[in-house]
Amino acid sequence: VRRFVVIGQKARGDGDFLLVDIPSTSGRLDSLLSALRACLLVSHGVRRDTVLYLVLLGDPERPRCVRITGSAARYLRPDERSLAVTVQKALRAPAQRGQFGEVRPGIATLDGGLEQVLPELQGSQLFLLEPGAPDIRDSDLSAPDATFLLGDHVGLPDALRSAWLALGARALSVGPVALHTADAITLVANELDRRAAG
Amino acid sequence: VRRFVVIGQKARGDGDFLLVDIPSTSGRLDSLLSALRACLLVSHGVRRDTVLYLVLLGDPERPRCVRITGSAARYLRPDERSLAVTVQKALRAPAQRGQFGEVRPGIATLDGGLEQVLPELQGSQLFLLEPGAPDIRDSDLSAPDATFLLGDHVGLPDALRSAWLALGARALSVGPVALHTADAITLVANELDRRAAG
Repeated sequence: VRRFVVIGQKARGDGDFLLVDIPSTSGRLDSLLSALRACLLVSHGVRRDTVLYLVLLGDPERPRCVRITGSAARYLRPDERSLAVTVQKALRAPAQRGQFGEVRPGIATLDGGLEQVLPELQGSQLFLLEPGAPDIRDSDLSAPDATFLLGDHVGLPDALRSAWLALGARALSVGPVALHTADAITLVANELDRRAAG
Repeated sequence: VRRFVVIGQKARGDGDFLLVDIPSTSGRLDSLLSALRACLLVSHGVRRDTVLYLVLLGDPERPRCVRITGSAARYLRPDERSLAVTVQKALRAPAQRGQFGEVRPGIATLDGGLEQVLPELQGSQLFLLEPGAPDIRDSDLSAPDATFLLGDHVGLPDALRSAWLALGARALSVGPVALHTADAITLVANELDRRAAG
């Protein structure tokens, strides 16, 4: 299983944003939706081997997480507005603390931040994507279950980054230019595709 | 200079589409807008060395092209709706046959299809992106001016593909999985970034 965790430092977790101005009213959820497309959707299909966690930290008092599971998700359209509607509906449904509840096939939410997701990542090899780290092309990616953590346009909170590394995460980079989160995910997925194809 | 040409086989060239339903009303312009973001925008910046041509063939009687020049473009926001507004305004402005006219800094349009763009590509090494072709990682990308042609979700028209190859284009692929146009562009740009960085 491939897992991606994207931290939205400013992203609202209550679904209370405007579809006509997603960037300004959602805390840049557009960046996370673009990452969702890059992570789970390929030409005429869904990556069935991939799970994406969006961690929405815009309200520090009430973080929320959304989990999209490629093997179960249905009717995901690749355009931003459709994905925004899907995520908005999911966020408006009631959620439990510390336990994902499915709101439609393949899409689940919980109340809480990254620490509430950690139980799902037991046994997964953890990676951290950041500029300047060792090149992914030279890295061991052979773990059957791997989780890649990425920040959004403002990067990762220091404490969260330190905690992830303390859990044994290895840092990787995807190239010499600092890219949008979606593009970093595309590059990780491609490297995994190439390794899988031998 | 890096140039990307994306063919939108179904994409409307008149700008007459609805922002609340871009995929259905524009002929999947969302796919091209996603490609635009991947092509020209990086973390907190624009790729100044990159030019993107969108070739809109939705109306066979009246193809249109949009050119976005990284070195001149201003205020490009990465979200789909903002990019859609930008392209819609450009398409609604009058355009000339066979000659790009700038409608705002870095954004120009013309009436016509790929053949009208060819004069701009004189001296550029041409490439064709398609599944199953030789791996980009093993390919010579040293030409100082290179142009990469990609299709949209329905691929490339046969006649156009043949004409491009007849012009001397070399076919390349980016990996074992068929991806969205945006992701293929991300992978090409990354390979070029890596070569440029030595």
